[in-house]
Amino acid sequence: MELHNIRKPMSAIILSHPETRDPISPEDFFQQSKLFVEKQLDMLLQENTVPSQQLISAARYSLLGESKKLRPMLLLAAVRTLGGRVEKALNTACAIEMIHTYSLIHDDLPCMDDDDFRRGKPSLHKAFSEAHAVLAGDFLLTYAFEVIANDPLLTNIQKVKLIALLAKNSGAEGMIAGQVLDMEAEGKTIGREDLQEIYQYKTGALITASLEMGGIIADASKPVLQALQNFGNDIGLAFQIVDDILDVTSSVAKHGKKVSSDVTNDKMTYVKLFGIEKAKLTACKLIESGKRHLEEIPGDHHLLISLADYVTK
Amino acid sequence: MELHNIRKPMSAIILSHPETRDPISPEDFFQQSKLFVEKQLDMLLQENTVPSQQLISAARYSLLGESKKLRPMLLLAAVRTLGGRVEKALNTACAIEMIHTYSLIHDDLPCMDDDDFRRGKPSLHKAFSEAHAVLAGDFLLTYAFEVIANDPLLTNIQKVKLIALLAKNSGAEGMIAGQVLDMEAEGKTIGREDLQEIYQYKTGALITASLEMGGIIADASKPVLQALQNFGNDIGLAFQIVDDILDVTSSVAKHGKKVSSDVTNDKMTYVKLFGIEKAKLTACKLIESGKRHLEEIPGDHHLLISLADYVTK
Repeated sequence: MELHNIRKPMSAIILSHPETRDPISPEDFFQQSKLFVEKQLDMLLQENTVPSQQLISAARYSLLGESKKLRPMLLLAAVRTLGGRVEKALNTACAIEMIHTYSLIHDDLPCMDDDDFRRGKPSLHKAFSEAHAVLAGDFLLTYAFEVIANDPLLTNIQKVKLIALLAKNSGAEGMIAGQVLDMEAEGKTIGREDLQEIYQYKTGALITASLEMGGIIADASKPVLQALQNFGNDIGLAFQIVDDILDVTSSVAKHGKKVSSDVTNDKMTYVKLFGIEKAKLTACKLIESGKRHLEEIPGDHHLLISLADYVTK
Repeated sequence: MELHNIRKPMSAIILSHPETRDPISPEDFFQQSKLFVEKQLDMLLQENTVPSQQLISAARYSLLGESKKLRPMLLLAAVRTLGGRVEKALNTACAIEMIHTYSLIHDDLPCMDDDDFRRGKPSLHKAFSEAHAVLAGDFLLTYAFEVIANDPLLTNIQKVKLIALLAKNSGAEGMIAGQVLDMEAEGKTIGREDLQEIYQYKTGALITASLEMGGIIADASKPVLQALQNFGNDIGLAFQIVDDILDVTSSVAKHGKKVSSDVTNDKMTYVKLFGIEKAKLTACKLIESGKRHLEEIPGDHHLLISLADYVTK
């Protein structure tokens, strides 16, 4: 879609001032936000006048490939819902996508999950090399923090809060913890509580962070940040359960990565514990529970509700 | 060394107020700073109440092992030289050691330099597993930014400047660039300029960053930050040339890692280009050039001069 094909210039729709902006449909918002994020990611990786083009090519291969951009969407939707300026959140949205992408690159390595496909094409270590995959992942992780620290539209206190929150939720109290716990549970019989804990850290932490970071950019109050966190916890867990279901029901073409990799890696999943039907039911219940937390948040919730529904699709 | 064995309590010596503090010998300063940094690193990895103790054990294995702590020393010495408060710099000193350590962990991986020994003991991927090494490296990289963002003694503007500088110098315009260029140059014949560029990024960038970060914490002026950067460029390059020399002359026991790994990996080095004697001479000249830059910095330079001399020992 070209800019001139949109009825109104994109900037007038998603970047308009909170007090003068028109209502927007979820479809328009997500389509336009995705384009904006992709354009900004592209720019951030060009701007970076680095000595090794090979490193940037590797990072671009993974970062600019097909992706739902769920985490940036959650962040931007939270900002818009709370009456904040979406343009202030664009770099942070890119930063969270960089963190998510680096985690996938490292997770696919032979010494980790050993996945040869990701997002419908060869994983980075297959397309380039293992060493490039390690370093491109390290770069994206580092660059995420640099992008926030250098953002010209955020205040210093916002930057510090965003960096602290992103680091916490992607580190040893968040995503990385989940990956270690996940790896250590391989081949073991674990129950629902342990599995939920792994999911909470591995997937939930970054999804929750995306929403809370949107709250920080929109200068949300503590109760609102808490409500966003509760919403994120529920839809994050639902998202991982849906991923378990897709792992056994989908095709490489549709799911974009090797199907049944959880089976190959002897990992416990919600589907193995409860079967597909019960897993689907749990995901739906979590989405409903998540939506109830939105009632504690001011504003029109239709964008966040759409994203919650999108998780189970 | 126990606290009660020091003539004066350590806090009175290295943490004393700039206006009331006594002169300190380089030996006392470095010995005490090293102890403080090690104690703080230990605390930062305990404080972190994380769900996976295995991840913390892996990080501690590499982070708390034998190390010269050169980068933290440079940072703390810069702060002291400029009349700043050393205690304000302790967490940042730990952060830079975390970045340095993560880079060694990832660099030692089989798909990278494939080094089985580091700092006189098995590399992390040999002591734990490759997956633990990838994740512990990711954790230390992430945690470095978190530690600075949560520092209670720094202002928000200082934190943002420190994070931006650290990310830049350890990312695709710094250390990671150096690692990619280094890897891409393997087996190729490169000249002095290309080799110096690789060293500048791979080793110089983080050494320079350590000094500049000390300057930021001491609220140094731009010309002083520039002088610190120039000093860092020279001693950083000297440090890498000395490392090349040690790679062919030292033993595992002394150097702490596999000797002649550069030969095994078919890497170009200063020693291969110019021979040991010329390499030694170049390192000495760089140290002298570095010291001259200190003249543009106010205060007593004896700590930074000692560190410059230490690089060639």
